[in-house]
Amino acid sequence: MAVASLEAALGDAKSFVEQELDALLPQALGPEARLIEAMRYAVLGGGKRLRPFFVVQSGSLFGVDRRSLGRVAAALECVHAYSLVHDDLPAMDDDELRHGKPTVHRAFDEATAILAGDALLTHAFALLAAPDCHGDPFVRCELVARLAQAAGSAGMIGGQVLDIAFETTSPTQQEIIRMQRMKTAALFTFACEAGAILGKASNSARAALVAFGQEIGLTFQIIDDLLDLEGDAATVGKAVAKDAGRGKATIVAELGLARARTQAEAMAAQAIRHLDLFGEKAELLRGAADFVVSRKS
Amino acid sequence: MAVASLEAALGDAKSFVEQELDALLPQALGPEARLIEAMRYAVLGGGKRLRPFFVVQSGSLFGVDRRSLGRVAAALECVHAYSLVHDDLPAMDDDELRHGKPTVHRAFDEATAILAGDALLTHAFALLAAPDCHGDPFVRCELVARLAQAAGSAGMIGGQVLDIAFETTSPTQQEIIRMQRMKTAALFTFACEAGAILGKASNSARAALVAFGQEIGLTFQIIDDLLDLEGDAATVGKAVAKDAGRGKATIVAELGLARARTQAEAMAAQAIRHLDLFGEKAELLRGAADFVVSRKS
Repeated sequence: MAVASLEAALGDAKSFVEQELDALLPQALGPEARLIEAMRYAVLGGGKRLRPFFVVQSGSLFGVDRRSLGRVAAALECVHAYSLVHDDLPAMDDDELRHGKPTVHRAFDEATAILAGDALLTHAFALLAAPDCHGDPFVRCELVARLAQAAGSAGMIGGQVLDIAFETTSPTQQEIIRMQRMKTAALFTFACEAGAILGKASNSARAALVAFGQEIGLTFQIIDDLLDLEGDAATVGKAVAKDAGRGKATIVAELGLARARTQAEAMAAQAIRHLDLFGEKAELLRGAADFVVSRKS
Repeated sequence: MAVASLEAALGDAKSFVEQELDALLPQALGPEARLIEAMRYAVLGGGKRLRPFFVVQSGSLFGVDRRSLGRVAAALECVHAYSLVHDDLPAMDDDELRHGKPTVHRAFDEATAILAGDALLTHAFALLAAPDCHGDPFVRCELVARLAQAAGSAGMIGGQVLDIAFETTSPTQQEIIRMQRMKTAALFTFACEAGAILGKASNSARAALVAFGQEIGLTFQIIDDLLDLEGDAATVGKAVAKDAGRGKATIVAELGLARARTQAEAMAAQAIRHLDLFGEKAELLRGAADFVVSRKS
């Protein structure tokens, strides 16, 4: 496919979800304005918006209404943003920069960062449960249940706990992959599955998108770890080579740069094969899989 | 009403929700066991379980199924417990004791406390959205939406932010009441409204329970602040007179002990009047309103 049309679609999804977030986040008014400002700073501060892209593209396979896609993409981005705010805290990764700007606890303060993260997570579920998200309450419940599963102790948060634990243990490659499935791939999987849920897709179509999301999520994490080692701070927009310095367990540390890249490429190819049943309609999803492997930041 | 039957009902609600929580929280298995242990420590560590009591009693007015009540009570208690875990953090109130035991960040560590709080909040929404909560997905969505509203930036978290801000400003009595409506009364209101949502109650019955919950929540907070000043650490189970030392804005600091108690009693009486339309069926809710004013811990 043409690189130009993928770039346009990525840019469209980015500006679409940013407009939705701006409209769907509370306004900074009254004495609690500082909290809302921190929430908005955290979630409107940049990022590639890859997860929203996958929501939009998976939903487009089933002709899902754009308003539904915008709500779900915004909810997912609230969860992703909250996880970064909490991960960056002094008690966690203690990071000072995110998307080239001070992290929330540096720009505001630690208490505000904890509470803004909590409020973003809470807001995500409010967005999914509201009638504006989808006319069928069964669909809305399914979205809430799946996002809670993907983001909770058996998903993202559990993965984060393993990531910390693995700094002081010697996990096997299988254990690292399980950690990254939970920590990173779970939200990508939700992004891809969400379109199928919104579109009331068949079980086989939904399963294909889940499988695609799992592979893409792991691929994304391997490339993230490669960029952390190879990247240049100005391009990546955050401190680089920090993970290795901290003894973080990664596939890259396990396999080395070259084999890790080969593995990521194999996973992206596997992801693309899961899209076979969608034919030409999935061309942008296939392009995005290539983009995830070849990205430089 | 007989004090004995209220005590029995409070005890029943407490043991019921603790059984439900034990069954509905994940089991501590695998390398992420530490996270689950911290979640369970936070939520099974004691407390009066007043919010679950209000869920059970409000639902009983409409003959709501006990399984639904248990799920919703457990979800609400997960949210309440998460808020305590995060409030106790060094960057927030920096408390060492909760229910007479070390706080989660003291018993585990700060990163685990942040993540266990996040996981409890997430789990609450998973419980409400699951089909086991209620057969009608519209009811489940309504519960998710209302809990997110009560716990979010316009509710509990917003109130917490105001509470911190008011340590260094001079709020009016109206501003303190607004803060406490958000910080404390919102979850009590949800507890009382939840029964009406589950029971598909009439608008007037639901509005009466909302009004009752708002008054009871404010009453609870005033008494909490009174106990903080008057109480004995061994009875209350946490450090006392800390709020005054910190310059926390409270109704008690504003009105003085005697007038604050009179105000709390007037609010409880007002709360009870909202129950008129339920007749004798609401006798335990009336008794609980008296209990909230007269409690010693």
